[in-house]
Amino acid sequence: MTYPDILPNQINDVVQQSANAFMIYNQYPLQQRVELLYTIAHLLDQESETLIASAASETQLSITRLKAELSRTCWQLKSYADYCKSGQSLQIRIDTCEENNHLNDLRKMQVPLGPVAIFGAANFPFAYSTAGGDTASALAAGCTVIVKAHPSHAHTSQLIADIITASLALLNMPETIFQHIHGASYEVGKALVSHPLLKAVGFTGSQKGGKQIYDWCQQRQQPIPVFAEMSSINPIFMLPEKLHTEAEPYAKLFGASISNSAGQFCTCPGIIVGIKSEGFEKFMRALSQNVSTLAATPMLNKGIFENYLNTKDTVIQQETVHELNNPSCNANTNEVAPALARVNAQDFIKTPQFMQEVFGPFALFVQCNDEKEMLLVAQQLEGQLTASVIATEEEMITHKALISALIQKCGRFIYNGVPTGVQVSLAMQHGGPFPATTDSRFTAVGGDAITRFTRPVCFQNLPHHLLPDELKPGNPLQIWRTINNIPGTK
Amino acid sequence: MTYPDILPNQINDVVQQSANAFMIYNQYPLQQRVELLYTIAHLLDQESETLIASAASETQLSITRLKAELSRTCWQLKSYADYCKSGQSLQIRIDTCEENNHLNDLRKMQVPLGPVAIFGAANFPFAYSTAGGDTASALAAGCTVIVKAHPSHAHTSQLIADIITASLALLNMPETIFQHIHGASYEVGKALVSHPLLKAVGFTGSQKGGKQIYDWCQQRQQPIPVFAEMSSINPIFMLPEKLHTEAEPYAKLFGASISNSAGQFCTCPGIIVGIKSEGFEKFMRALSQNVSTLAATPMLNKGIFENYLNTKDTVIQQETVHELNNPSCNANTNEVAPALARVNAQDFIKTPQFMQEVFGPFALFVQCNDEKEMLLVAQQLEGQLTASVIATEEEMITHKALISALIQKCGRFIYNGVPTGVQVSLAMQHGGPFPATTDSRFTAVGGDAITRFTRPVCFQNLPHHLLPDELKPGNPLQIWRTINNIPGTK
Repeated sequence: MTYPDILPNQINDVVQQSANAFMIYNQYPLQQRVELLYTIAHLLDQESETLIASAASETQLSITRLKAELSRTCWQLKSYADYCKSGQSLQIRIDTCEENNHLNDLRKMQVPLGPVAIFGAANFPFAYSTAGGDTASALAAGCTVIVKAHPSHAHTSQLIADIITASLALLNMPETIFQHIHGASYEVGKALVSHPLLKAVGFTGSQKGGKQIYDWCQQRQQPIPVFAEMSSINPIFMLPEKLHTEAEPYAKLFGASISNSAGQFCTCPGIIVGIKSEGFEKFMRALSQNVSTLAATPMLNKGIFENYLNTKDTVIQQETVHELNNPSCNANTNEVAPALARVNAQDFIKTPQFMQEVFGPFALFVQCNDEKEMLLVAQQLEGQLTASVIATEEEMITHKALISALIQKCGRFIYNGVPTGVQVSLAMQHGGPFPATTDSRFTAVGGDAITRFTRPVCFQNLPHHLLPDELKPGNPLQIWRTINNIPGTK
Repeated sequence: MTYPDILPNQINDVVQQSANAFMIYNQYPLQQRVELLYTIAHLLDQESETLIASAASETQLSITRLKAELSRTCWQLKSYADYCKSGQSLQIRIDTCEENNHLNDLRKMQVPLGPVAIFGAANFPFAYSTAGGDTASALAAGCTVIVKAHPSHAHTSQLIADIITASLALLNMPETIFQHIHGASYEVGKALVSHPLLKAVGFTGSQKGGKQIYDWCQQRQQPIPVFAEMSSINPIFMLPEKLHTEAEPYAKLFGASISNSAGQFCTCPGIIVGIKSEGFEKFMRALSQNVSTLAATPMLNKGIFENYLNTKDTVIQQETVHELNNPSCNANTNEVAPALARVNAQDFIKTPQFMQEVFGPFALFVQCNDEKEMLLVAQQLEGQLTASVIATEEEMITHKALISALIQKCGRFIYNGVPTGVQVSLAMQHGGPFPATTDSRFTAVGGDAITRFTRPVCFQNLPHHLLPDELKPGNPLQIWRTINNIPGTK
């Protein structure tokens, strides 16, 4: 099903309505946000069969995968609601006069920024799209939301938008707290993020798209925050001792990580760095054998299929690269099988094309002559969502400079595991230095994602009965607050 | 005393050395940062006489004021050290496998960004300059620091830099953890913030300067965070009932707030909005009388003196503006006396020049015909550091829309008080929507200023003995951590 693009003059109305609704939504008690998120989760769950069927036909993702993703999306909504209810995302600090010998009573909390525009991801029709992490965290923050449907799953997006609208109606809340627009064209995105009443943007997609939105937002008269999650090659560093004994189990683990959902995860491993050795040879051989047994699977759509082949070609057509297999692909069905190639570290370091994400089931082995070259590869990397090390505990101790260099480059550092599988929990960090994201100081997954859409306001010397409930003496909402430097629930 | 500008090729060396020192500084235990800040505070205090004499001769600020500022600066260093030691600025979240039925052990903490460039303020030689809030918070965050001395108090800046260098030497720490450069030219600033190894910028100064640095940093291949505190007209809204009985005491309070240190505070009240009434007349009359008794005081330097007269002229030369006094000024001594003027709300709303900060002892009364006009003025405002309301408690209840509009515009909302006097404590918010600052999500004052120079990293499944001490089971540092969603000191 296709939907016509929204017209430019309609975008103005949408943002204006969002700003009007914001003046109401930001006055609701905290509990109202919690109920909204729970209601959306409940209705999504009720409609799961319809939603999964629609998403399967639009994305070619498997039913098993989509079921897991929808269930995760409902859990995500509820867990952000719970975190919102605990008050932790409000980051309340109260400094009283009595305890501090201060002149002023100061009470600070996070307040919502205003209308937020969200651009969902092609590869996650549920978890990172219309009712995904960005929408859940913006609503939990107290912001109104405008989702621009991803054109590649516009119908699924519309179904989910209708569910959010129904949730608002059930709770007697203004329907314009959440709005949903269609627009495949560049102009729609530009008009939306350039509107003076818009206050923040969430985006998940390509580096080109994310950077363009970021630039538009910085060039506004009033620049606004942009949380764009864009690209990552999720490097894996394999140390010899560990590979010596465990090459085969790790080959199996990485075969699954590279090929799962046709490699269309933002945390899919893109480069695997090892030191020339029998163990690394054995690992490369075992991984090649492993992926040769895997069937080709369809990519999300023709555009992503073609982009995959093109970006992969810019890598494998480098003279210095050796292809390790000859994977099948089918331009009628957009099906691809996992592809592997190899390059020497010295050549890798010299060639900027290797830093670019190849979105799909492709990994490049980077073979180093020694540990010094391995460190150079790590230092050469751009910012990443994740970095992983496969090593014995002893090797972790003897490779401190490598570990330290990798931590500088990433948002999540993984020991003896694969980067795919992003757990939704408070300690998760999903974000990393540019170009992984445009703002490494925030996460897109876990309760801390809520604070992306807030800013602090300090209330000075307000009579206590005029304070927001969150800040009142006696803590009527029983939330977490830091009083005179001590966190607690007083 | 004048210092030659640093040469462009030297800037490269400085940033490279800062990046090298960062690799050492970020590996120190937390306690080492704490000791550094305490040592700097101690040595500043020891040298207070020399520092105050130097600052007095360079800035024309009074000895009383400079004494208070230096003492505040030492307290600030120690309070950020204490907050750093408590672990709260690390925002630790630990999700264990056992409690959550999770596959992964996730442990997240804030890590330092890297080398930070700091541009101190003309108007605060101590508290917002070389060893001021930005330096204190960057060092507490674990970042190395490069301060560009403000040319208008370069000698004082050099003396303070020498004290920080001496502190590092006393603790046997690398001297390049802190570096100090001179440069009055535009090119020095541009080269510094454009260097690829630089990771963040702190700036306090004019809107033109701050926005220029922000733009340079966004145009880099890797954009970096810029915390520029730029301009604010700190609006005061006075409601009739309160003025009816207390016009005179408030006139006295605001006379001092506007004229203190020749109005050279970022939180100096720039517009005072009231409703045409006997009370507001009485207040304007009393304030005019109050300031007419105040002597002219010297501004910081010739440039600031001239800029004050020019920006004030763009306001008072508007046809719609009535000057309320004829303040003296002396171009030989850069002395100015407080100036007041009046405009009607309808004219105020139509004229963008009135939104511009006049840095100095000047306030513009904005006279509204009714409460509706007052609300329109509030809605018209740009982002501000502060907004204040002078009102009875009853008036606060009957003016909800006005209060709500003002909170949207500011970082600190003040009831029945003046905006000058920024308390250094955790609940303080010093920052606000653009153009008050370039990033309203952070504060420049109070312990939370530390997190400006950090980003989160999640450690997944690391063997416990390989974790940073901050994240180890048993909490060896006895710091605040959130474990399985519950904050505590376990």
